[in-house]
This record gives sequence, C-alpha cells and structure tokens, in this order.
Amino acid sequence: MSKDKNKVKIGLLGAGTVGSGVIKALQNHAFVEIKKIGVKDLNKKREFVSALNGNKPGAGHSPPLLTSNLNEIVSDPEIEIVVEVLGGLIPTKELVTLAIKNKKHIVTANKDLIATYGPELFDLAKENNVQIQFEASVCGGIPIINTLKQTLSANSFKKIIGILNGTTNYILTEMLNKNLSFDVCLKEAQKLGYAEPDPINDISGKDSAYKIAILASIAFHERIKIDEVYTEGIQKITLEDILLAEELGYRLKLIGVAGKESDGKIDIRVHPAFIKKTNTLSSVLGANNGVLVEGDLVGELTLIGKGAGSMPTASSVAGDINLLVAQISSSQKPNPQFVCQHTSFAKIKSISETTNCYFLRIKTEDKAGVVGQLGTIFGNHDVSINTLTQRCTNLDNTASITMLTHLVKEEKIQEAITEIKNANVVKQVENVIRVLE
Amino acid sequence: MSKDKNKVKIGLLGAGTVGSGVIKALQNHAFVEIKKIGVKDLNKKREFVSALNGNKPGAGHSPPLLTSNLNEIVSDPEIEIVVEVLGGLIPTKELVTLAIKNKKHIVTANKDLIATYGPELFDLAKENNVQIQFEASVCGGIPIINTLKQTLSANSFKKIIGILNGTTNYILTEMLNKNLSFDVCLKEAQKLGYAEPDPINDISGKDSAYKIAILASIAFHERIKIDEVYTEGIQKITLEDILLAEELGYRLKLIGVAGKESDGKIDIRVHPAFIKKTNTLSSVLGANNGVLVEGDLVGELTLIGKGAGSMPTASSVAGDINLLVAQISSSQKPNPQFVCQHTSFAKIKSISETTNCYFLRIKTEDKAGVVGQLGTIFGNHDVSINTLTQRCTNLDNTASITMLTHLVKEEKIQEAITEIKNANVVKQVENVIRVLE
Repeated sequence: MSKDKNKVKIGLLGAGTVGSGVIKALQNHAFVEIKKIGVKDLNKKREFVSALNGNKPGAGHSPPLLTSNLNEIVSDPEIEIVVEVLGGLIPTKELVTLAIKNKKHIVTANKDLIATYGPELFDLAKENNVQIQFEASVCGGIPIINTLKQTLSANSFKKIIGILNGTTNYILTEMLNKNLSFDVCLKEAQKLGYAEPDPINDISGKDSAYKIAILASIAFHERIKIDEVYTEGIQKITLEDILLAEELGYRLKLIGVAGKESDGKIDIRVHPAFIKKTNTLSSVLGANNGVLVEGDLVGELTLIGKGAGSMPTASSVAGDINLLVAQISSSQKPNPQFVCQHTSFAKIKSISETTNCYFLRIKTEDKAGVVGQLGTIFGNHDVSINTLTQRCTNLDNTASITMLTHLVKEEKIQEAITEIKNANVVKQVENVIRVLE
Repeated sequence: MSKDKNKVKIGLLGAGTVGSGVIKALQNHAFVEIKKIGVKDLNKKREFVSALNGNKPGAGHSPPLLTSNLNEIVSDPEIEIVVEVLGGLIPTKELVTLAIKNKKHIVTANKDLIATYGPELFDLAKENNVQIQFEASVCGGIPIINTLKQTLSANSFKKIIGILNGTTNYILTEMLNKNLSFDVCLKEAQKLGYAEPDPINDISGKDSAYKIAILASIAFHERIKIDEVYTEGIQKITLEDILLAEELGYRLKLIGVAGKESDGKIDIRVHPAFIKKTNTLSSVLGANNGVLVEGDLVGELTLIGKGAGSMPTASSVAGDINLLVAQISSSQKPNPQFVCQHTSFAKIKSISETTNCYFLRIKTEDKAGVVGQLGTIFGNHDVSINTLTQRCTNLDNTASITMLTHLVKEEKIQEAITEIKNANVVKQVENVIRVLE
C-alpha cells in the first residue's frame, strides 16, 4: 500500500459528511497520504473512491484501502496520524484510546468525545508523547481553538460568548426575518438539512454546552465537567420574544457564555439571551457561528464563520493535520502549546448564584393596580425594574406586561417569579430571558 | 545579568507604545526573560522600569539592562529572540538584518518593514535557520496571520477584504454617527490619539496598503511589491457620500481588498467602498479592524477586533514569542509553516483592468434633458445604470444626481467620467466610489 516514503501516512476513521470533506481537502497533498479509510459498510457506493482513483491517472497508485476493520487503522505501524471523524462515543472512545496507546497523533472533529472524555484522553496522550488536535470540534471552520492556544496565549481571558450552534441560529434568524413561528422554522431547517430529524441536541442547547465547555477549559486552564454546565434551549422562544427584543434594541440569540469570576469559580452556561445590537455577535446570521473572546491584552475579539458542514469542518481537520505534519518534520516532540497541562477541575458557579438582567413577559388581568402589585413583589425580592411596558389586548380582557430588570441575582428573580405566578391578577409568566450586558 | 538559565532570553528593540505593552505582557513570564531593552534616550523616565523592579521584591533580580547601543542587543550571544518594536525602516532594517545573521529569531510589529523588505529578510532568515514572526504587523491584536498560515493552511484563498486601519474607520464611523464633516472628525481623532499629528499615512490608505500586501502575500503564496498596490484614501469622502451609502443599503468603509484572478494575476487595492450592510464587515465600528477571508474549504470567515494600541499589539507580539519559545523547547528547526517558501513576485492586475460597480455623485444644471444626456454618454461607454436618483436644489438651480452602476470595467467608467466632466450641463463630478459586490 505504501506509495510515497516521504509522505506522512494517515488513517481515517469514518467517511461520512466530514470524512469525505477531509478526503477532498487532502487530495494531491504534497506531504500527506491517506493510507486507510475505515467505514462501516464496505459495499456502500462512495463518490470519493472514484475521485481518488481519478485524480492520479496512470500514476500506478492504488487508492487508500477501505476497511471495515477499524482496529486495523489504529494499530497500523505506518500510520502516524489517526483522523477521527466517526462522531459519537462508542466505539470512538475505545478506538482513539488504542490509537494513542499505539503512539499515534489524533485529529478529531468530535466535540462529544473531547467534552466528555477529554481529561482522560489528554492525560493518555501526554503519557504517550503524542498530540490530540481538535480545532474542528468547536464551530467547524472557525479557528478559535488554535488561536486561543497560540496567538492569544499571552492573554488572561475574562469572558467567552459564543453563538455556537448553527441550527438554532438559523431558526432564530428565520423567525425574525420571515415573522414565522418556532415550529415552522424548525421544519424548514430540517427540510434544508440544517437540523437533524431528531433536533433535540441542537435546540436543547446540549450541542452548545459541549462547545462552550471545551472553549472554557482552554481559556481558563481548568477542566470542565460537562454535566455541570447549566443548559437551556430555545424550545420556549416565541416570535413575540424575538420581536420585543428588536424593539428594545436587542437581538435574541442562543448563546454559550463562560467567565472566570473573582472568587475563582467559572460561570458557564447555555441559554437564550438578549444581546445588544451594537455587539458584533448580533450580526451572526443564519447558520453561521460566532465567538467573542475578551482577553486582558487583546480586548474583545470576534470570529464569525461557518460552524458546520463538510468543507468548513474539513478546513479545520486538514489544518490540524498540516500542523502536525509540520511538527513531525521538524521535531520529535509534541509542541508544548498543544499539550494539555491541566490537572484540576474547575469549580462551577451554580446558575442561582449568577447575576443578570432579565427580560420578562407576563400576562395579567387588565385591571387597576396590576403594575403596582407586580412592582411590589419585585421590590420585595430586590428586583429593580429598568423598563416596563403594559399593552392591553381588548380581545380577552388581559394585559401583556414586558419588562427589563436591572442586574439581580438569579435566585432573587426566581423567588420573585414564583410569587408572581401565585398572584391573583397574573394569568401566566410567559417567558423569562436573560439579558447579556 | 543572567537570572534564570532555563528561561529564553529576549532582547527588545524599542520601548515606546508597543514596547511598553510587551514588557507588561511578559512580566513574570514562566519561560521568558527580557535581558536587554534598547532605547534612544537612557535618561527618559519610564514607567515600566520601576514596574519591573517593583514586581520582584526581594528576589535579588536586577531589571533588564536599558541600553542605547542597539547593536549590543542584536549581537548578544545569550539572546535568542529579538523583538523589534522600533517601527520605521532606519535603522530598523539594518538591525534586524544583523540579528538574523547572528542566528536570532525575530518578532516584529513593523508592517512597513515586512511589506517593504519582507522578501529579502525572509530569504536571509531561511539561510540562517531562524524564523520571523510578524502577527502584530497587521491589525494589531487580530490573529489573522498565524491563522492563515496554520489553521487555514489547507485552504486555497479566493479573496481577502479588510478594514485595516482604525484611524480612518474611527473617522468614518464618527461622521456617520454624529453627522459631522471629515475635517471635524479628523481633528477629534487627533485629539483622542486615534490619529497622528501628521495623519497622511492613515488617511491616504498607505497604512492599509502595507497590510493588505502582507496578507495577500501569505494567502496567495506570492510576493507583492508594495508600490504596485493601487491606493486611494478617504480625503475626498464627504458626509453626503456616507449618508447616501446608508440610504442605498450600504456602509462606506476604507477597505483593502485582494483576490486571485483566473488569469493568475492578483487584484489588490485600497480604496473607499460601499459595502452591503449584510456583510459582517459593516459591523466593524469605531477604531476596530476587521478582516474577511474567503477560502475554498472554510467559506467566508470574519475576524473583528482591536487593530492597534499598546496592549492588543502586545498580545500578538507576546503570542509570537510564546510560539517561538514552545518551538525552541521542542525542536532545533523552525516550524516549516512559519518559514517563507515564496520565490516569485505576483503579477498585479492594474486598476484599469478591474471590474466593479460604482457609485457616482454628479452636480448638474437643473434643466430638461440632463439625465438623458448623461445616460447616453454612459451607454456609449458600456456603463449600465442600476439605480439613478435626481434631486433638485432650488438654491442655485442645480441638480444632484446619484447613481449606482452595474458591473463595468474601470477603464470604461473612467472614459465615461472624462466625457461627462466635459458635458455642458455638468457642473462637477463630485465623487466616484467603488461598490463591493
């Protein structure tokens, strides 16, 4: 199988959406050769196989070996880099573990794997003197991970805010642009392939939680347990919330946010939020992703681009491969900038301890004294009101009250909301959304 | 002077705005020690000297040696990295040349140096087996250079568009936000320190030309002669142009743009341009910079952040130092991703060969047949009109005609404009601005 002794041999685990992008990106590469490609079904027709053959007419090369025996790839002595684009945890974790034990560098696009088993895998890689590169695991083509590790490495980071999920950002953008409901836009996203048939990982915020956990762990030099990331999705967001946000000078986005607090705890969470229209992240539209980092030296830096898809993700995977190949050609040792030095797990601030501004939308009876009653309850719980608007709907004799609060502790606003829900005049607390200041 | 045998010794050329930022950024660095700092005037009071002393109470360390003999720094055998933050070309080029000949790695924030003498210096560095890092030379804190070289290295780039100069972007943003003239905003920018007392390098577009030349040379793997970059500044931009842009759905920005054409030529230029409000670059406000790159894999990626200033620039300088230090600790050879492999100079497309849409603002007599006459002239030169608005000003019996053209070759529109200027009914062609499609 060996075609060129000077080329670094690579084994690919998986040849799906990302994998076939990687194969295209590495075609005719001067320093890299894909030796083996591991797939589940050997008989499936695959476009890239003929492409690989077709690109080397008469060169006497055979194409990379397709194999359904994935163990063969992680144990092949000639393969120096294993590229994992299988996704999921089973059997991925086991295969990657074996590859590392066999002294292979890893390039992965798998956020679940890194967010869930990162600590264990990084320790193992260090032991075995190999490197794990995972630029593609967060925000597809956006080069945020290597940037945090290298070019911004002199910074202490204060904050990361990200629009980390293209599916939900597409849905929210469509709702705003076309005045449509969540359900209609979700169906449209599924039809276009922006959302999975089962979209729960995206719309529940879980996908974003994996990503913000990975970014926070790099920025703040501590490991994050994924289960400790507070996560709230966009299922309850209505068109009304989106339009009211615009009216108030904000844009509604699903964000992942992480910050290091003065007490050393990490405030990390995923939820819908109102962000100011002057924030560059408000211009992240459609299926795009965006990440804003704030460092003590660099100030605020925003990266906006394609967070998913075959070729953008392949851009990051192939970039990581190039980076490893450059290193292999100039050194025997992994670059210390890419070796995880973390040993401890972060202390996570619970959501009830955090301080935020809030947007509330409350349906009440339309009668005298309602605002006064609400105001009194909020006041009793130290919730100070910034703006309040009451609109009457003549149809059912109810009033819709929208308000923005000043900064207040989450547990205080939750106490107030509990009491408000029980107030006679209140029909429903329709939504509570945090406001990013 | 040697304080810690395990630390990499650094020499700093210059201790001005950027230099003092670098000193702050490297304070208490675990792996780096600033051994010598070269300054012009030894007697000048410098904040950082006491800071350096003050930060190591009782440690028995003496601060880095201040010296006005810059040759001492580039020839010190203990110094492995020379950080050049002097700026300018004289005596900088000579000092950097000497440092490279003495086998020192270079970190520089100097765009003039790289854009003017890059080819020569990179060849010399290759010969001497050292590396030149220059992330800070383009857009201060924005990590565009290392990103192009590493994480995006698998891409073929189609296009780079940048808002590369904070001074002019500040002026244009202020004109728009406060309805003020160019002159007033320039004076304000000078008062606030965003513009130099002599602002010509910024407002003429020269500063942006250096930067787009550096970026294009990295993205397109060819050397660019700075004198061949067509450069037009913002001196002729009026508030009226800016407001008309907004009215038409655009924003007026000074941009650097570079693209690889199908004939192999590079289209590279700096000029004011109307950019669509849906383009993420339109949200680059105030003194910020932004760069949009389009790669075949990654698609469009935009980076927005602080393009100048002491600490953002120090962020990139210190990042480059960390990158070199990591490399020095793990290898003897420069990372090939950071070694310039270019040998040839790009063929540059002349501005008259380029194709653009145009915005025109023309003052004419207010009488019948004017629009017809203009339309005929444009038609004769293959200029097709997209939108046209005529507004009469009753005061002096003139009309103001604004129009957007469809795509047309620059030489055609220039021919048309020459003829229009000579038409009887035309008082003045007040401005011609390219539109970015």
